[in-house]
Amino acid sequence: MLNEKNVQLGKVRSEIRELFEYGKKRKAEIGAENVFDFSLGNPSVPAPPEVKKALEDIIATVDPVVLHGYTSAQGDFNVRKTIADYINLRFKTQLDADCIYMTCGAAASLTITLNALVNAGDEVITFAPFFPEYRVFAEHAGAKLVIVQGEEGTFQIDFDNLARALSPKTKAVIINSPNNPSGVVYGEKTVEKLCRMLEEYGKAHGVKIYLISDEPYRELVFDDSVKAPYIMNFYGRSIVCYSYSKSLSLPGERIGYIAVNNKMEEYADVYAGVCGAGRALGYVCAPNLFQQLIARVYDKTSDISVYKRNRDELCAALKEYGFKVVKPDGAFYLFVASPEPEAKAFCERAKKFELLIVAGDDFGVKGYARISYCVSPQMIKKSLPAFKALAQSYKLCGGEK
Amino acid sequence: MLNEKNVQLGKVRSEIRELFEYGKKRKAEIGAENVFDFSLGNPSVPAPPEVKKALEDIIATVDPVVLHGYTSAQGDFNVRKTIADYINLRFKTQLDADCIYMTCGAAASLTITLNALVNAGDEVITFAPFFPEYRVFAEHAGAKLVIVQGEEGTFQIDFDNLARALSPKTKAVIINSPNNPSGVVYGEKTVEKLCRMLEEYGKAHGVKIYLISDEPYRELVFDDSVKAPYIMNFYGRSIVCYSYSKSLSLPGERIGYIAVNNKMEEYADVYAGVCGAGRALGYVCAPNLFQQLIARVYDKTSDISVYKRNRDELCAALKEYGFKVVKPDGAFYLFVASPEPEAKAFCERAKKFELLIVAGDDFGVKGYARISYCVSPQMIKKSLPAFKALAQSYKLCGGEK
Repeated sequence: MLNEKNVQLGKVRSEIRELFEYGKKRKAEIGAENVFDFSLGNPSVPAPPEVKKALEDIIATVDPVVLHGYTSAQGDFNVRKTIADYINLRFKTQLDADCIYMTCGAAASLTITLNALVNAGDEVITFAPFFPEYRVFAEHAGAKLVIVQGEEGTFQIDFDNLARALSPKTKAVIINSPNNPSGVVYGEKTVEKLCRMLEEYGKAHGVKIYLISDEPYRELVFDDSVKAPYIMNFYGRSIVCYSYSKSLSLPGERIGYIAVNNKMEEYADVYAGVCGAGRALGYVCAPNLFQQLIARVYDKTSDISVYKRNRDELCAALKEYGFKVVKPDGAFYLFVASPEPEAKAFCERAKKFELLIVAGDDFGVKGYARISYCVSPQMIKKSLPAFKALAQSYKLCGGEK
Repeated sequence: MLNEKNVQLGKVRSEIRELFEYGKKRKAEIGAENVFDFSLGNPSVPAPPEVKKALEDIIATVDPVVLHGYTSAQGDFNVRKTIADYINLRFKTQLDADCIYMTCGAAASLTITLNALVNAGDEVITFAPFFPEYRVFAEHAGAKLVIVQGEEGTFQIDFDNLARALSPKTKAVIINSPNNPSGVVYGEKTVEKLCRMLEEYGKAHGVKIYLISDEPYRELVFDDSVKAPYIMNFYGRSIVCYSYSKSLSLPGERIGYIAVNNKMEEYADVYAGVCGAGRALGYVCAPNLFQQLIARVYDKTSDISVYKRNRDELCAALKEYGFKVVKPDGAFYLFVASPEPEAKAFCERAKKFELLIVAGDDFGVKGYARISYCVSPQMIKKSLPAFKALAQSYKLCGGEK
């Protein structure tokens, strides 16, 4: 007997991967420019020019024995110090280098954090819609993932649902704002209310509940009126899981960090747990070259205005065609209501118009589909007639306006 | 309650790390050139020039969206194909790209493999002396690590000890040849006998035993007369965990692979288990830039002749001074018998001569110390009088010859 759970995980392709493979086949058949593939969250905007320049400079000037050598397990001290200082500058925190643990990207940040916190039988809460791998990560760590449905139509936190889900077994709550798959951002009032509720529940029941903020999309907030608050300023038992995958368009290089709030009394134990979990999972250190890169470009981002223009154009068009769209304030995803009860049937029909979009079922919400608009502006423009025809096939009222 | 096991793992510094920290302090006190730090396995030989050239070329020429984008979870197809072809060429196997799974280095190769194979309560056998993280990795996967003492004095496999350790719960056996910490290499006869024994035990008891070969030191075999056989040619249920950390002097960049033997009937399930375990542990893909690098320098190595000269010089001198040394055929470690019963006391005394060496206790063997000779040839030369004085302090007979 192999480990059947992992064998099954390896065999079951996710819905998203299936669609991606279909897209590859279809592109070969009718030409890539005629398939509108909105299935994956792979940034289309290149890394900013500073990345290339910094990589060239590091490779040209740093002694290879140092550059490619081990760093300490938690990451190079100067890299961690640079990141802590930058977080302090932006969010008025008082972190130091030893609050930061460098990781191989957001997924590693989450698995390491969960393995630091969780004992068998614990519960981890998240809000639907949610990134499906949360279930895989939580279950591997020995926890049960408890899903709290978001507010219908807005996908903000439904606090009544949350109140019902909290239990003395709740070890952690994962939030993901800006959200994959909905693009929804939690404002300050929402975060305040969430933190107050966790604080009060913890006190009343004598339990410590950790708030994990999964933030690969932090820099992708498009309007000045919208702010994604920094949870460390609202809640002591908080841990930020960050990744440079989307902000710097480096998803394949696997570089990010865990920031442990030093305002909680058991901070040193939590940080030790992170170091220990990293060891147990086989993470020796995050890639050294990319650690050095981050120390030089920590405050840069890719040109995210491209995503904003995509969002504006696509949202306006979809609404005009009669689709119901959840307003996405960030990330590069958009949640559209299915015009028929089964989102999978809707996505199947979309395929006939060469539109590849993902049913929301996998994200824990029925009746919606995810559109990843981190594509080229040309593709957005070219895809609009297909979306219009899709709307018309459902006789959506906006379709004829 | 946090996950206490991981909190403790994070708090307990390994003996090696302790010594490394002591070394840093001591170097600040008396000058780095006066401390002979043989504690760490950090290559002193730089990556071969082809690495720098290839990195420069990749960064200059590959579209950054492709270069830094996600690869498939198991790794880029062409990279995997290149590696499979190269293994086939060297070892007369018939692997294809889908036997290879790219990883973030040897530790990740091991944790992923163990999580693919192991169910709670299974046993994993390894041979002492062994790399201490094996215990951490096996236990995280839910297994018990069973230690089989090697043959006294040679640290080859003691087959009587192995016969006693095998049980119907044995799921896997880990070998590490060339070995950390002893430098010992298993020859063809040893490997043949091991495989026959596992085969026969498996048949007799109706169990499937997997042989995991942890091979970060494969390319570090110094004499033409010594060969490290390729286990896939001897045993169907075999998995090779490889890393480029030492062969290309890239330990901080975390790049390696798992190769699953396609000669076993359940090959597809084992490979799926590897893919699933990688997902569950949070490994999305191995760093893309370093995958591309490997596709260009897969057949290169650092200048390992430096390590060979270090070994020859140090071994000869230690023997001359009267130390008992286990002949190291590979890797860049050397196991020396402690002249007093407690190896830790021996290592403490060595410190007085500014020699930093690690007691073998952590590696599962009493009465020995590990010397990591992946240091500069200058340091070897400069350290010899200190080793001589250490021998004389024990009045070793060779010391006066």
